Amino acid sequence: MPEQHALPVTRSANFASWYQAVVGEADLAEESGVRGCMIIRPWGFGIWQRMQELLDRRFRDTGHENCYFPLFIPLSFIAKEAEHVEGFAKEMAVVTHHRLKMIDGELKPDPQAALEEPLIVRPTSETVIGAAFQRWIRSYRDLPLLLNQWANVVRWEMRPRLFLRTSEFLWQEGHTAHASATEALEETHRMLEVYRSFSEDMLAMPVVAGEKPAHERFPGADHTYSIEAMMQDGKALQAGTAHYLGTNFARAQNIRYQSENGELAFAHTTSWGVSTRLVGGVVMTHGDDDGLRLPPAIAPRQIVLVPILRDRPEDATVVEYCEALAGELAAASVFGEPLRVLVDRKGGRAVDKRWSWIKRGVPVVCEIGARDVAGGAVTLIRRDRARKGERIDMASLKRAEFVAGAPALLTEIQAALHGEARARLAANITDEITSYAQLEAYFRDTEESEAFRGWARVAWSAPQGVALAAVEQQLKALKITIRNAPLDQSAFASRACVFSGAPARELVLVGRAY
Amino acid sequence: MPEQHALPVTRSANFASWYQAVVGEADLAEESGVRGCMIIRPWGFGIWQRMQELLDRRFRDTGHENCYFPLFIPLSFIAKEAEHVEGFAKEMAVVTHHRLKMIDGELKPDPQAALEEPLIVRPTSETVIGAAFQRWIRSYRDLPLLLNQWANVVRWEMRPRLFLRTSEFLWQEGHTAHASATEALEETHRMLEVYRSFSEDMLAMPVVAGEKPAHERFPGADHTYSIEAMMQDGKALQAGTAHYLGTNFARAQNIRYQSENGELAFAHTTSWGVSTRLVGGVVMTHGDDDGLRLPPAIAPRQIVLVPILRDRPEDATVVEYCEALAGELAAASVFGEPLRVLVDRKGGRAVDKRWSWIKRGVPVVCEIGARDVAGGAVTLIRRDRARKGERIDMASLKRAEFVAGAPALLTEIQAALHGEARARLAANITDEITSYAQLEAYFRDTEESEAFRGWARVAWSAPQGVALAAVEQQLKALKITIRNAPLDQSAFASRACVFSGAPARELVLVGRAY
Repeated sequence: MPEQHALPVTRSANFASWYQAVVGEADLAEESGVRGCMIIRPWGFGIWQRMQELLDRRFRDTGHENCYFPLFIPLSFIAKEAEHVEGFAKEMAVVTHHRLKMIDGELKPDPQAALEEPLIVRPTSETVIGAAFQRWIRSYRDLPLLLNQWANVVRWEMRPRLFLRTSEFLWQEGHTAHASATEALEETHRMLEVYRSFSEDMLAMPVVAGEKPAHERFPGADHTYSIEAMMQDGKALQAGTAHYLGTNFARAQNIRYQSENGELAFAHTTSWGVSTRLVGGVVMTHGDDDGLRLPPAIAPRQIVLVPILRDRPEDATVVEYCEALAGELAAASVFGEPLRVLVDRKGGRAVDKRWSWIKRGVPVVCEIGARDVAGGAVTLIRRDRARKGERIDMASLKRAEFVAGAPALLTEIQAALHGEARARLAANITDEITSYAQLEAYFRDTEESEAFRGWARVAWSAPQGVALAAVEQQLKALKITIRNAPLDQSAFASRACVFSGAPARELVLVGRAY
Repeated sequence: MPEQHALPVTRSANFASWYQAVVGEADLAEESGVRGCMIIRPWGFGIWQRMQELLDRRFRDTGHENCYFPLFIPLSFIAKEAEHVEGFAKEMAVVTHHRLKMIDGELKPDPQAALEEPLIVRPTSETVIGAAFQRWIRSYRDLPLLLNQWANVVRWEMRPRLFLRTSEFLWQEGHTAHASATEALEETHRMLEVYRSFSEDMLAMPVVAGEKPAHERFPGADHTYSIEAMMQDGKALQAGTAHYLGTNFARAQNIRYQSENGELAFAHTTSWGVSTRLVGGVVMTHGDDDGLRLPPAIAPRQIVLVPILRDRPEDATVVEYCEALAGELAAASVFGEPLRVLVDRKGGRAVDKRWSWIKRGVPVVCEIGARDVAGGAVTLIRRDRARKGERIDMASLKRAEFVAGAPALLTEIQAALHGEARARLAANITDEITSYAQLEAYFRDTEESEAFRGWARVAWSAPQGVALAAVEQQLKALKITIRNAPLDQSAFASRACVFSGAPARELVLVGRAY
């Protein structure tokens, strides 16, 4: 007898199809008909908006101010920083006309309205923000300059996947300028830490923070750092990046300041960002075969009350009971904010509504019928452990007990999801691999390669130039990448490089990735 | 002796230059170097973010959910609704390529990457959202569908002005679908009322809500309503619009639902929006010759404390005093939220900092020196009436008294700004004009026409077709427009149409406009 589950496909049967099923059934997002661009549906957008609120507060608390720069970047701006061009030139949307015209009965770009200089839809905003920095920064007193913007960006995608890789996505991009390399590097690490703690504490998504190898750096950066999360198929998801750009953009754009002793010096800049990709990360970290499971800290609704209605006069009492209960819950706080509670009064059968909320991942779903009202009780499902065996695990609590314990319950669910994901991450990083042959055996590119593979923590020599190119080939052959060199190198012992046998310099994580 | 003021130009000398000066000196926004696109600086963005928060809450409270639709719209989507095309086709950014390439040493759109179908950067999203409505709406149970999105949109502008008319701007667009005309019209009026009360209560910007005449409707709408605000030069600013789209978009996009008795019927849709233009409206409603004056409800900071520092040991005591004071103030609430207070510890002279905050319009600016600390006092400037004669009007209060009275003070400032603007609106609408000759005399297009002209409330016959075209000509000759037919028609009495002499049907407001 097949196991019961609410989705048409399980994680173990086909992880990619399962992901699509969750995104669809949980009403997170869908294809728009515009190649590579998604529609983020209300429930998915609600999750993103929660992330925005929580991150925005952290950015403000670390001294950043929000602003907004143009969507369009003149081609000449992009062309200024050579490496940057190299890295992005292949995937940008280009605006060439500013008007349409009816020509022979068909609506077409008006040839009379061709732009003198094409405009690029921003893939990221270093160049246009750098141009403003050049105007705004005069003296050391203007530094540090700490800005952030919430925006949409476009990078053309040939193989789009909802949230994970879309031509248009939503993100925030921080951009800062500093008087010294030390300060700029401190900022880079500070924001990496904001991302790390946000992922762990709010998304309940464990990550490894570390530095990207040279060949994986952001185009134009001196150092790129990332947080990497492990999905339930063992693949890595780069969940956030922070870049120390050195004086590269400052030199390309002439961002200079007068120092305290009157000398002109180039500013040191940074940039850092996370995107709607995080929503995909949450799905693949916490989802199960019944759909999404949301950490309470980012759930648009933490508790949903479903009144069981029977088209009878007593229905009114049930609804009234739910509304009163919702009021009591909303007066309580968790994670420093009022509880987010909904009474689902829409039409339809209670059991269908239950399943829709389970698939959407609401942390606590309550079903309230006439019997609950009579007994002053609440029947509830904890989404993080919805089933006992194959059955839905429903508990009944006295109303007062449920209300009093709701904040603790949500805190417990948050911790349980985090603990589960942390255990998975810890259990699936191997430290046993010391040679390329072993790496090959572990990740070998055969038919079975879609099976679960965790990450390997291996020693390498961090080579440059030709030697690095050779390593890139070795990685490519196994369809793996170096995710990062973890900041925590405490396990590093002098060993031979897993790729070349040369003396190793650090540990890096390698694995398959999104 | 010329009057003192902080800006290089006064409202009376040159209103347009004054506006630019405020936007620049208050650090609201600036030109980006990308034609028609502005950079919204942190202070300006902070105001917009406040507006967003306050509006978002109101949209949620009226049952709407946020979502996100693609930036790009295929040309064929736009082409579906004929009137809509007609209205927008002239001013859209067109994406024709998805890649750049180095050709003869120059970065250019890659001819190999021309799009099969050009994409339009959304000027508004009725078409792309309508296509989703078509997929999502099946039965009457799916209605009403109440969505909103916060987004950037692009309408090419030949004569851009910061905030008022920019090629890219930020806005929200509500899109809803309903089972009946009645419900859709109710929604349209509900959101118009949200805009009206938000403008009055939060922006302290009085507006007149009414219906646009047929020739000023949104392309594709059956009815368009607006709120119109009067700027200090007498011109009208359309500050928000709400459209009842009838079944026009539903027919063009086949948005149908099965009614309770099983029949297929077209949905009735609405859309409504406000934009960053509101920031310009606040400037021109409340600004004075010293810069911006911000209503406390939308001020990113309501009280700024400027410590007067002298590079002496006692500086530490002054800063400490300010921080403690800020803490006490932040523990208080106004308008249902904690007070927003800043201690400006940046370098520079206190007097310069004072003026920068005055220009930025902070409702209450305090200067705290050693003498205040010794006396347990606070020296403050109320920005809404910063001067007594030509002098800055500084008051001194006991610290405890200031803290206890701060919420009431901010409420009073909010009311004072609103009262002032309301009096101006009321005083500058004339009801005396009963003929086109009088209208001509009032608005005559001479050199002096840039002088202050308020609005005229006139009776008209609301003609159609050729007769309407004639009225349009008459309006054009005077460079005025019909702003709207106020919802409040209580002053309407049977009169002759000011344009044609035919029997009048309603009162309309006419005036110059942004």
